[in-house]
Amino acid sequence: MLGVSTPEMAAIISNHGGLGSLPVGGLSPEVTQQLIRKTKSLTDKPFAVNLFANNIPAYNEEDLEPMKQLLKQLATERGYQLQESDLANFHFYTYHDQIDILIQENITIVSFTFGCLDNQNIKLLKDNGCTLIGTATCLDEALILEANNIDMICLQGIEAGGHRGTFIDNMPLPKISLASLLSQVVNKVRVPVIAAGGINDAQTIQAAFNLGAMAVQVGTAFIGTAESKAIPSYKAMLDTASGNDTVLTKAFSGRWARGFRNEMMNKIEDSGIVVPPYPFQNSLTTTLRKLAQQNDDNQYTSLWAGQFAQATKFKQTKEVFAYLVEQYKSSPHHTGNAINT
Amino acid sequence: MLGVSTPEMAAIISNHGGLGSLPVGGLSPEVTQQLIRKTKSLTDKPFAVNLFANNIPAYNEEDLEPMKQLLKQLATERGYQLQESDLANFHFYTYHDQIDILIQENITIVSFTFGCLDNQNIKLLKDNGCTLIGTATCLDEALILEANNIDMICLQGIEAGGHRGTFIDNMPLPKISLASLLSQVVNKVRVPVIAAGGINDAQTIQAAFNLGAMAVQVGTAFIGTAESKAIPSYKAMLDTASGNDTVLTKAFSGRWARGFRNEMMNKIEDSGIVVPPYPFQNSLTTTLRKLAQQNDDNQYTSLWAGQFAQATKFKQTKEVFAYLVEQYKSSPHHTGNAINT
Repeated sequence: MLGVSTPEMAAIISNHGGLGSLPVGGLSPEVTQQLIRKTKSLTDKPFAVNLFANNIPAYNEEDLEPMKQLLKQLATERGYQLQESDLANFHFYTYHDQIDILIQENITIVSFTFGCLDNQNIKLLKDNGCTLIGTATCLDEALILEANNIDMICLQGIEAGGHRGTFIDNMPLPKISLASLLSQVVNKVRVPVIAAGGINDAQTIQAAFNLGAMAVQVGTAFIGTAESKAIPSYKAMLDTASGNDTVLTKAFSGRWARGFRNEMMNKIEDSGIVVPPYPFQNSLTTTLRKLAQQNDDNQYTSLWAGQFAQATKFKQTKEVFAYLVEQYKSSPHHTGNAINT
Repeated sequence: MLGVSTPEMAAIISNHGGLGSLPVGGLSPEVTQQLIRKTKSLTDKPFAVNLFANNIPAYNEEDLEPMKQLLKQLATERGYQLQESDLANFHFYTYHDQIDILIQENITIVSFTFGCLDNQNIKLLKDNGCTLIGTATCLDEALILEANNIDMICLQGIEAGGHRGTFIDNMPLPKISLASLLSQVVNKVRVPVIAAGGINDAQTIQAAFNLGAMAVQVGTAFIGTAESKAIPSYKAMLDTASGNDTVLTKAFSGRWARGFRNEMMNKIEDSGIVVPPYPFQNSLTTTLRKLAQQNDDNQYTSLWAGQFAQATKFKQTKEVFAYLVEQYKSSPHHTGNAINT
């Protein structure tokens, strides 16, 4: 959960028997290394490093102009000020810039989303002892990952908070529930499958295992923890979420993602202005989102959350994790699979 | 599954230990009675009769004109001919017209969707020994049904084929997966919950039970059977469904429903013409859909199907049912709950 997860969260999960995940998608090699080293300073256990496997599409600079104007206007309306430099001269880092760091740092588990790593880097990582976990939102994507020698597949149901991992172009966005996705995929691939999307308690964990998952991935349940970087007014929304208040939007980043509806999302969607593709829109909105976060303003930043977006009563990462594990272990049908967060 | 289910299907399921369901939503009292009597002639066991609990909204006749013109044009383009009388003088039957028949025929299980029956009819049916099953697509709807003394709640996940049962106006259409919906609702109501949406095999049945359902409802798996009224070219689509080929549309009926994309859906959606609300649009498209069905034309009729829309290899209702039950009974974690179809 880039922007929410911290080295502390990843380390605590790994220290307590799960597999913590450190998101570094799109970050510079330097920041990637800093975050990895920080996490290593907090745990001796393995943790996963999560990459974005997208390519940068060709896009005309001038096509960004209408969105730039809109964002400047939105900023002003809210009392923020965007400089021209906040909306220009972007440098886009990709996973190609980060692989050397991962190898230098002896990372043993690399997960990724938004695509499939290229053959050269798959081979390089595997030759260096890495286990690779790709993300799929439909059967065809899972088959592509398996055909590319990816070791495990994380199936992301439509319930999942944050960005859709979808990477096949020119098809309708898959909106397949986790249960249907597991049913469609598990018997069609040989590699182990990890279930993501709406996993929030012992029952959803058990259901995923019954549907053939060998592990589950949990995100939203940890957004409200003390160790999360989410701003207080975002955490507070989780405490009162109804379960029917998250929507899919491209407004913040140019990629489909699920979160709570808010003013910035509405204004961008209602403007009728074409949202530039990821990562362009993501970069255009970065400064405004940061300004909002500095002001604990949950109406002008992304508020990613899954469909079953209810907070547990626990507010420490280790407590949420222990709650999920203990609740699951004490449930009548548990099968002893792994919990990955 | 109105338009697909038959008395034969309902009777076979009830005869083999399930609870068959006879859809009569929007039908005349006479046809309702005929279908009930036909089903009774085929089984001595109880079966559910499914009603539509909607009200008829106020709507200006002249506001239907653009859609009428479009449908006439679409008909002509496809070689069909619509008469003016096909698009006018509709009579809308509601459940109010059917309750007396249900009581006369000693129906003991009445399920419904698109709303909640009114208090008077709830009392009348319950005084006559009926068990009532309502349909909910979000927690708030489930709470309304429970508050109205409905005996059981069918939770319809976003995976479900056909019409959404949603009945709270002025809120975004709930698009909650079955797993998330069960998680949200099961601990908040006291009445038993039936799970619907994407139930297609032992694993999905088991997952629903793990999530707290006391029974499951299965639709799409039976569309391809010999006893179903679905046209051959519709049944054939189920055999090759990918799982990512169903969409939600209002094009056919004015209510959101999930089915395979086809030409009529695309043309209505792309026209930009406002789709009149249910049941107006449903009546406007009835003759054209019938003409298409008579020609086994799957491009000009609704093709409802759930998200996990894969056909079993079995083509008899009793075989599909036996397959689901036997596969479930032989699965390692089964808990002995009921299967309702």
